[in-house]
Amino acid sequence: MLNALPTINGGRLLGDLRDLAKIGAWKTGVHRPTYSEDDMQSRQWLAERMRQAGLEPEIDGIGNVIGRSSKPGPRLLLGSHVETQPHAGWLDGALGVLYGLEAARANPDLAIDVAAWADEEGHFGSFHGSRSFTGALSEADIDGAKNKMSGIPLREALQSAGLGGRSRSALEDGTYCGYLEAHIEQGDELDSSGDRIGIVTSIVGIWQYMIRFEGVQNHAGTTRMAIRKDAGVALVKLASAVQARFPEVAGPRSVWTIGRIVLEPGAASIIPGGAEMLLQFRDADPATLNAMESLLRTLVAESDAAGPCTATLHTLSRSTPRLMDEGFQAALERAAQRYAPGLHRRMPSGAGHDAQILAARMPAAMLFVPSIGGISHHHSENTSDEDIVLGGQVFATAVAEILHGS
Amino acid sequence: MLNALPTINGGRLLGDLRDLAKIGAWKTGVHRPTYSEDDMQSRQWLAERMRQAGLEPEIDGIGNVIGRSSKPGPRLLLGSHVETQPHAGWLDGALGVLYGLEAARANPDLAIDVAAWADEEGHFGSFHGSRSFTGALSEADIDGAKNKMSGIPLREALQSAGLGGRSRSALEDGTYCGYLEAHIEQGDELDSSGDRIGIVTSIVGIWQYMIRFEGVQNHAGTTRMAIRKDAGVALVKLASAVQARFPEVAGPRSVWTIGRIVLEPGAASIIPGGAEMLLQFRDADPATLNAMESLLRTLVAESDAAGPCTATLHTLSRSTPRLMDEGFQAALERAAQRYAPGLHRRMPSGAGHDAQILAARMPAAMLFVPSIGGISHHHSENTSDEDIVLGGQVFATAVAEILHGS
Repeated sequence: MLNALPTINGGRLLGDLRDLAKIGAWKTGVHRPTYSEDDMQSRQWLAERMRQAGLEPEIDGIGNVIGRSSKPGPRLLLGSHVETQPHAGWLDGALGVLYGLEAARANPDLAIDVAAWADEEGHFGSFHGSRSFTGALSEADIDGAKNKMSGIPLREALQSAGLGGRSRSALEDGTYCGYLEAHIEQGDELDSSGDRIGIVTSIVGIWQYMIRFEGVQNHAGTTRMAIRKDAGVALVKLASAVQARFPEVAGPRSVWTIGRIVLEPGAASIIPGGAEMLLQFRDADPATLNAMESLLRTLVAESDAAGPCTATLHTLSRSTPRLMDEGFQAALERAAQRYAPGLHRRMPSGAGHDAQILAARMPAAMLFVPSIGGISHHHSENTSDEDIVLGGQVFATAVAEILHGS
Repeated sequence: MLNALPTINGGRLLGDLRDLAKIGAWKTGVHRPTYSEDDMQSRQWLAERMRQAGLEPEIDGIGNVIGRSSKPGPRLLLGSHVETQPHAGWLDGALGVLYGLEAARANPDLAIDVAAWADEEGHFGSFHGSRSFTGALSEADIDGAKNKMSGIPLREALQSAGLGGRSRSALEDGTYCGYLEAHIEQGDELDSSGDRIGIVTSIVGIWQYMIRFEGVQNHAGTTRMAIRKDAGVALVKLASAVQARFPEVAGPRSVWTIGRIVLEPGAASIIPGGAEMLLQFRDADPATLNAMESLLRTLVAESDAAGPCTATLHTLSRSTPRLMDEGFQAALERAAQRYAPGLHRRMPSGAGHDAQILAARMPAAMLFVPSIGGISHHHSENTSDEDIVLGGQVFATAVAEILHGS
């Protein structure tokens, strides 16, 4: 147990969040894509705030901002990210980084490092910042990455931002006793239940696929129905089968989404000769993920065998679901019970977070605060000031308990 | 019956077709979008060929090229178009125009006018050229039209091409005893049956719709399946119902096509908040068209009522199916029987043609020649030289019989 409870400065925390939100402000939210001018300015701003808090800041080659404590003893790493989705909200990422900074300020005698991981939002790829830090990003990964919207190569974007490439030194085992990250929930579970703190049990695996159909492009007026090879018809049939049959194998928390459909060439009077769809599903249980993939493979093979169009499945990515550290969860829960008795719950994270990357190298855990209306990745994303301050206090308290107990 | 049968010059016809195909040549086909530099050059080329054939050419305000005969007597109008779909074939449109020119040359004593109607391919709208000629195009239609791909206003494109606007003078009733148009079939019915001439019985009506779904855009990881309002799911369900249920009301020649699907914003990790699809169907029978529309309205209303997304139906266009003149069909059939005995058939046109516009003002008919493999709107579109010459001879002969019989 703790000797003395840390107390955060709620006004300072809210002030920092509001200051950071001014950089790249857009409507009631923020537009700070990774390595944009505003994003780099926010990293400089953060480095300066870290310095003022007594941490030694570094902006590494991939753009991670890491503030290191000079204190001795067991060392905890806290972090999240500062870049945003395009035209998105003010709290996503920023909240977790500034919770980390405030936890360091509230626990001045503890060895707490604070990080803002570059490109958690995936403008160029998948968790480049935290993967670089943990040694899971290769030079080839950087060479091959480009901006998903503009197509600008990652190398070029890094150079324009004045960054050299990967993190300089490999992370040594044992440097940290663990990693803690806070984030807005991004869903409506806390908001709709009235609970004020979420303790994350696991981060889901996200498995993504592109399914492509090849038919024959032809005139929509002169080609009889009987001889058509309409790739769009094949796509609709498969999409329909996915929606009808996924519930058979899905778990209670599974989600699946067809986010994009393209028919080629996409004109009213032309029978689509090609068609593509993006399918993604998420679950914390590897067995459920495997069952969904197995069903998908069956459905695509059935479509391909039935004809008249070919159907092929292309795996785009498959992230590993990560269990959060049980001891850290208990510490977060005790702190939540102290400041919000009965108003906290354990829950999985449906979104991906840097914690899943850090979890491969050290014990890791996450805390959620409510998202009003479950709104996320939109300029109207918000959390009440009271919940922001409460979450920061719970976070700093759990940090202190973990380090005192180590 | 005819006093003397006209004889076309097959070599001259093929030579003209090959000369015209050089303007905007692309691979084995042609790229001549309406009012492009190549398109305008092809109009000048045609006007000059008309002059050489003894016709008085005019390029009117909307870009129609009309070559007028100075001969007295009942007057027949022959035509098609010279612009092409993007990166398309060498015969679509050009064949019918040069059949007209060759028919005029082979019947030098008859009053035959030849026309190339502007923008049959609909780069800016729907049959602007022939509608302008027949008085069915208003100044407001021109004001409102723009290029479907580039968005350039029709007014601007006309000005750049040195054109003034609509056809100068209204078409007087009784000017022509009728209109004849030849075209490649664009389907595979002739090619797969071995028949060499098609006599068109009717031109289908084309009814086009946009169906829009409104849901709620949200995070694909943190939003539970139960509370989603996924506009893409609603769209797939409706598209699936269209494919499953249209056969119940369709006729044996009906065709329907979903040519375009857009999910908004179209990203892997975002639940589509909006979705749109283009649906088109065609038939020569108004009752069948009405039955398909009625079913579509029912399906959209059911989707909207079922929720959780709204579904709305927007009618984009509804063209009137047109019956071809029975007397002209008989004349085409007799000419076909003379030069290709037993190798001709009556058939509807699944594609739209200027003949459907002219048919509102005068008797009209069409002749088809085979499309090899049914390929159309592609650079590999082709018809054998023998079939091209045969079709031209049948066409010129029918023209002569119609005028002698008038």
